[in-house]
Amino acid sequence: MYNFTFKNPTKLIFGKGSIANLSTEIPIDKKLMLTFGGGSVKTNNVYNQVVAALERHDYIEFWGIEPNPTYETLMEAVTLCRKYNVDYLLAVGGGSVIDGTKFIAAAIHYGGDPWEIVLDDTKIKKVIPLATVLTLPATGSEMNGGSVISKQATCEKYAFHHPLIYPAFSVLDPESCYSLPIEQISAGIADTFIHILEQYLTTNNQSMVMDRFAEGLLLTLIELAPQLMKNHKEYDTMANFMLTATMGLNGFISMGVKQDWATHMIGHELTALAGITHGVSLAIVGPALMQVMRDDKREKLLQYAERVWKITGENKEHVIDKAINHTADFYRSIGIKTRLSEHNVGDDIINEIVERFRKRNTILGENRNINADKVLQILNLCK
Amino acid sequence: MYNFTFKNPTKLIFGKGSIANLSTEIPIDKKLMLTFGGGSVKTNNVYNQVVAALERHDYIEFWGIEPNPTYETLMEAVTLCRKYNVDYLLAVGGGSVIDGTKFIAAAIHYGGDPWEIVLDDTKIKKVIPLATVLTLPATGSEMNGGSVISKQATCEKYAFHHPLIYPAFSVLDPESCYSLPIEQISAGIADTFIHILEQYLTTNNQSMVMDRFAEGLLLTLIELAPQLMKNHKEYDTMANFMLTATMGLNGFISMGVKQDWATHMIGHELTALAGITHGVSLAIVGPALMQVMRDDKREKLLQYAERVWKITGENKEHVIDKAINHTADFYRSIGIKTRLSEHNVGDDIINEIVERFRKRNTILGENRNINADKVLQILNLCK
Repeated sequence: MYNFTFKNPTKLIFGKGSIANLSTEIPIDKKLMLTFGGGSVKTNNVYNQVVAALERHDYIEFWGIEPNPTYETLMEAVTLCRKYNVDYLLAVGGGSVIDGTKFIAAAIHYGGDPWEIVLDDTKIKKVIPLATVLTLPATGSEMNGGSVISKQATCEKYAFHHPLIYPAFSVLDPESCYSLPIEQISAGIADTFIHILEQYLTTNNQSMVMDRFAEGLLLTLIELAPQLMKNHKEYDTMANFMLTATMGLNGFISMGVKQDWATHMIGHELTALAGITHGVSLAIVGPALMQVMRDDKREKLLQYAERVWKITGENKEHVIDKAINHTADFYRSIGIKTRLSEHNVGDDIINEIVERFRKRNTILGENRNINADKVLQILNLCK
Repeated sequence: MYNFTFKNPTKLIFGKGSIANLSTEIPIDKKLMLTFGGGSVKTNNVYNQVVAALERHDYIEFWGIEPNPTYETLMEAVTLCRKYNVDYLLAVGGGSVIDGTKFIAAAIHYGGDPWEIVLDDTKIKKVIPLATVLTLPATGSEMNGGSVISKQATCEKYAFHHPLIYPAFSVLDPESCYSLPIEQISAGIADTFIHILEQYLTTNNQSMVMDRFAEGLLLTLIELAPQLMKNHKEYDTMANFMLTATMGLNGFISMGVKQDWATHMIGHELTALAGITHGVSLAIVGPALMQVMRDDKREKLLQYAERVWKITGENKEHVIDKAINHTADFYRSIGIKTRLSEHNVGDDIINEIVERFRKRNTILGENRNINADKVLQILNLCK
């Protein structure tokens, strides 16, 4: 096991009716900005519950944080916050609204152009507190210190991290996810599954506890997925999924282990250049990456095969092939199109992505050996 | 899943050499008291590392916090803290030293007799910060807000809990556990195993994630135990055990589920009245409690049998019997004497314990149905 430091200060407030807790969790003397996405919270009763809980608070609203939140939109919110001396943010929405709000929180008091903090998060010095009401289980952003921001002008998409951008608290009410369209549930399942794989499917024998926790979450998702596809308005099903998504990316499964994240780095480019939904982009890239990196990940792939998919056998290469196929089949079973051709992405986009990695000289993966040539191999397998 | 709130603010600093972090983690302007047990830290190099890290800090030392820390001893430390205006505590030792230090932290500014806060933890209002250097994996106290204190004068032992007594940080260096006597490793394994069972072995179908996490920790302990018995001076073995013990009682496996804790409540009495080591007392009581409460716990016992011990079969009662026997055999396999007769505890002590429960009118268990008569049944099965 590698040495590590773990600290997660976010308070999780979980369960039906828990949005009402906003009234006491947010200090009454704060000047608050509520941030929202496109307006779905007005049709699913979340907005009403938030407004009712905050009837004694002083707040302004900012609407329109888009999927893959952009620097351009968020800077409008930053300007508003500065104008009205906002000193507390409440994100109401999914991972995009929360990620965007983390950027706003860190940008308000930043002296230079805030895009700089996305490129170099060590520049973050002062952040205003933020909290969240989660309406889409997927990203784990409600309980971590990460954020992914896109820049429209340049079709770029990068992650940044900082201990100061953990939400103070997050409210998770499974009932607020009942109205989600099924494609968002699918993408959330895939997103969560691959968050876990990025932390788990690396070198074997690093941490027995982390392995068991990660496998436990994967097994839970495999059991939940068909139930969610059939009916995602059943309370315990949604509650289990919500908790799984949060636990998948809150640091609970990454203590003392190497992490990969190459699937995400490649997937981000597919989103930035071809507009593919984040979770879907990961489901496309993930199995191909396993295939190309199968020698590096060999022992862990065998453990994954046995413990998660119950696949064993004499021929280890067959076992690994089966595990990779099961993974891709799992994504397809929840309605995700896992081939680039199904998204009309061809060689032009592939070449542009590979060129980006080549120019940046980015080396990905837990062993830092996925270079631009490997990215090309991986993307060719996704066609 | 039940509604829940989760927050664990403790920073975990894990790995070899990590004691050196004390120098920067504890503010330099604090008046510090270091608290210790019986002196083993002087022979295993922990004391030297602590003192070296704190060479620029201002501290006093308090030695002699005993296993099952007593109110009487701890009040001596409280008096010293008040005299020297101590405003930060560093516990260096196992669960007893840490539990005792939590009491000291909460007692210093308490107006009345601090035993009152053990009996009623809502009376805790002001606590000075504490941190820990853990030298014995077992209790999870290094990352939770609980403490168990004994009163010598009356042979009483009670737990109290408060959000303010979570350690600010805890340093876990597996190498500092190499010099532990093997009996303490055994008791630590049993203690951890039963912490997990208290949170897991209740009603089924409460939380898929919590079930998988708990089962993952149990499977890890079962795999680790023989390795630890053979050689507990191997780094990864001890690192995995340390992390398991912490994760077993830091709230990570108790979100949204009922908990039992009857084994602990009965075990505490065996410690208070017969001086049996905490972990050993739990290994004695645990299997008997499973037997007596098998109808309440039926479905979860079957899941435990299948997922943890890989026992299945047509005859469900046989499956449960086997799971209970495997559990007791597991404790015996690590050298624990699991019968009361092996500890010279007879009917006199049993009757005194039962009378205590009868007088206090205590009702235990996740379904609040273990009364004094049930406690008698359980203890009779432990003979």
